Amino acid sequence: MPMAFKKFIKPSILPGFMELQTNEQLAFNEFVAKIRESFELFGFSPMDTPIIEKSEILLAKSGGDTEKQIYEVQKGDTQLALRFDLTVPLARYVAQYYKQLTFPFKRYQIGKVYRGEKPQKGRFREFYQCDIDIIDKEKLGLINDAEILAAIYFVFKNLGVGDFKIYINNRKLLSGLLEFLGLGDMAQEIIRAIDKVERDGTQQLEAQLRAMKIEEMKIGKILSFISISGGNDEVLKLLREAGVSGKEFEQGLEELGNVASYVKSMEIPESSWEIKPSIARGLDYYTGTVYETVLTDYPDLGSVCGGGRYDDLAGYFTKQQLPGVGVSIGLTRLFDQLNQLDLIKKDRNTPTKFLIAAVDVPVEKCFALATSTRSAGVPTEVYTKDDKLSKKLDFANKMGIPYVGIVGADEFQNNAIAIKDMASGEQTRISLDDAGEYLRDKLA
Amino acid sequence: MPMAFKKFIKPSILPGFMELQTNEQLAFNEFVAKIRESFELFGFSPMDTPIIEKSEILLAKSGGDTEKQIYEVQKGDTQLALRFDLTVPLARYVAQYYKQLTFPFKRYQIGKVYRGEKPQKGRFREFYQCDIDIIDKEKLGLINDAEILAAIYFVFKNLGVGDFKIYINNRKLLSGLLEFLGLGDMAQEIIRAIDKVERDGTQQLEAQLRAMKIEEMKIGKILSFISISGGNDEVLKLLREAGVSGKEFEQGLEELGNVASYVKSMEIPESSWEIKPSIARGLDYYTGTVYETVLTDYPDLGSVCGGGRYDDLAGYFTKQQLPGVGVSIGLTRLFDQLNQLDLIKKDRNTPTKFLIAAVDVPVEKCFALATSTRSAGVPTEVYTKDDKLSKKLDFANKMGIPYVGIVGADEFQNNAIAIKDMASGEQTRISLDDAGEYLRDKLA
Repeated sequence: MPMAFKKFIKPSILPGFMELQTNEQLAFNEFVAKIRESFELFGFSPMDTPIIEKSEILLAKSGGDTEKQIYEVQKGDTQLALRFDLTVPLARYVAQYYKQLTFPFKRYQIGKVYRGEKPQKGRFREFYQCDIDIIDKEKLGLINDAEILAAIYFVFKNLGVGDFKIYINNRKLLSGLLEFLGLGDMAQEIIRAIDKVERDGTQQLEAQLRAMKIEEMKIGKILSFISISGGNDEVLKLLREAGVSGKEFEQGLEELGNVASYVKSMEIPESSWEIKPSIARGLDYYTGTVYETVLTDYPDLGSVCGGGRYDDLAGYFTKQQLPGVGVSIGLTRLFDQLNQLDLIKKDRNTPTKFLIAAVDVPVEKCFALATSTRSAGVPTEVYTKDDKLSKKLDFANKMGIPYVGIVGADEFQNNAIAIKDMASGEQTRISLDDAGEYLRDKLA
Repeated sequence: MPMAFKKFIKPSILPGFMELQTNEQLAFNEFVAKIRESFELFGFSPMDTPIIEKSEILLAKSGGDTEKQIYEVQKGDTQLALRFDLTVPLARYVAQYYKQLTFPFKRYQIGKVYRGEKPQKGRFREFYQCDIDIIDKEKLGLINDAEILAAIYFVFKNLGVGDFKIYINNRKLLSGLLEFLGLGDMAQEIIRAIDKVERDGTQQLEAQLRAMKIEEMKIGKILSFISISGGNDEVLKLLREAGVSGKEFEQGLEELGNVASYVKSMEIPESSWEIKPSIARGLDYYTGTVYETVLTDYPDLGSVCGGGRYDDLAGYFTKQQLPGVGVSIGLTRLFDQLNQLDLIKKDRNTPTKFLIAAVDVPVEKCFALATSTRSAGVPTEVYTKDDKLSKKLDFANKMGIPYVGIVGADEFQNNAIAIKDMASGEQTRISLDDAGEYLRDKLA
């Protein structure tokens, strides 16, 4: 067809799908690498489950929203769908390979999940979740709840996104309190309201509780309970002295005290975590410890990592009781938010660390050097176009390449190279044979 | 519902989807990391496009098989589908962000793609592709064809899967030969037949050519041409002396000679690559250099990495001419095949490198040590169950943890730890404060 009449398909992606430019992608991948490394520091093993699963698996424990948001996939007779989280695949995996696994089973998974939400700012239809969970048979020790907190600490310390605070609570405290107040049958509704107090404020919560026709005295008690704050020891003391009793409450208090004591013996800095009685987590799923994490300097971002303990991971797939504890980071959203705030360092447009620039020397003569520095583990490119040196240096600056190797006629004759540090401007002349090692050390 | 009557959903995945156990997953991830590192050594930038795209994008250049194999996705009005390769998304990406990109644009993508093929041994419906491509505007220098070969070399050298051979050819040689023989109008069909000669043998090809009613003399010429072999210089010489002429052929010969000369100046070992005139690549898409890679000790696996040069990447999306060159590794299949052959080292069941075992010391006293070794970058776990030391050591062996830190009463009193190297059995006593650095050095 003659060019003039050719109809092009407009290149575009769907709304709600994140796609990055190279400088952003390099920063994103660094985030993923740091999260992965932090998870592995705790011995969490990698897992990679299919993105497509049978619908009956994914919807085993379906609630209204999930079913509406799920992406169905057409192929043959079996009903297929795209996973909407990494927890259901984990449950299926543990139930399926139960006999081969070593318990406690500690796994992480970093992968894309799909939710057909209405596209809006900060909401994605395809996004990365980064999950860790520890699962055991029958009974899971509370030390694991502390390990999860420590893992969150390492993740955010290593990400380098400024100060952060990991809030921790125990769901049994809230449900125990509500039972004590005779509000046990409204517990779900009330806990969901409490869950929003950080976002919507105390007045809003008060109004909601009033709308539920709860007595003023009890509303007062709830509000004063969830506002208990202070150092961790003080909060535990105040909780003990809050005038609440009952088996559930006392068990929650004991669990929370034990977890706090474990975290202390791990020497996780006390400035980075805090017992906060208002932390609820909306899902009914959680039965003990719950976590939320906020970036101290950016409280508007809300919780960037949350989760908790649950009694039974895979009740829909196996009769085996599998208690667990875990948290999830919504990485795509977090990255997007930090990027909007211009908090993502995006100074590299290439993974290249070393650019070879020939000056008055045939560029072919530089190819062996590239092979040699690459063999030393240094990401290397040769500038092959016949441009002036200044243009080559400009290119290195533009791309964020930290070192340029200049091979002039004199260097070439003496088997040498001048390596320019683009940040400092310093230039060092060394033997060609030493270039790889020199750069590797510089970049380490 | 009472437990006895509860109906469980059988936990299973779909046929044709690969799911790994932890020891396999760790090995798989190491493959991915090495491929990624090798790609980055050449300055290829990471890319991560959505798995779901508009059907009109994915099927812009649809052929029969693609359309049949594609997974459609239901949600709203727009026709959606799962990507079936990484090339179409690359074409869409380059056309879409054309103005923001720096050319030559070098990108890699490692990601899952979907093809609804009939499930059979070695065929997957969800599998990882690892692609590199170099794209330029209007004209792309032949040095890039050599860089692609060098990148393949680094990938397979770093993967450590034994000897391998990268075969290289130029499609213009075959099409030039066929034109010279007056078979130009059957070129596509003949080249597709030649493409299978490695798998099916010469006799099969001969029969096929005969079935196409090609003259015996010409069949003989084709067969002798594609069987030209020897050292790279010799093959080039034999090709020059093959008695074929014509513009297409001569251009192919010149290109191939230039690429070979660049590869030589890169000092890529000649034992690892070979000019092979029978390499065709079935797709019409390719217009110049073509590549195939075989693992020398496992020729039955067929080509594990192939690709080539194309004139125009994104003709369906933009009028801009975008020539490129690239290759793809079908990683899921390669890993599965090597795993079947028992060639994958699977001696680790956890990323943990250091297990802390308390002996006659409260286990809580070891938690701070774990934080300290983790801070030094050493994946660490504390054995928290109250078992005998021998059981703890057995656990380390079973999981493939290389170092165990034994904290006995005496060590504890002296702020020390005995670190056991599980491979050699040697035990070293050092100060607690030095444990992190000691292990980091050992593991480096």
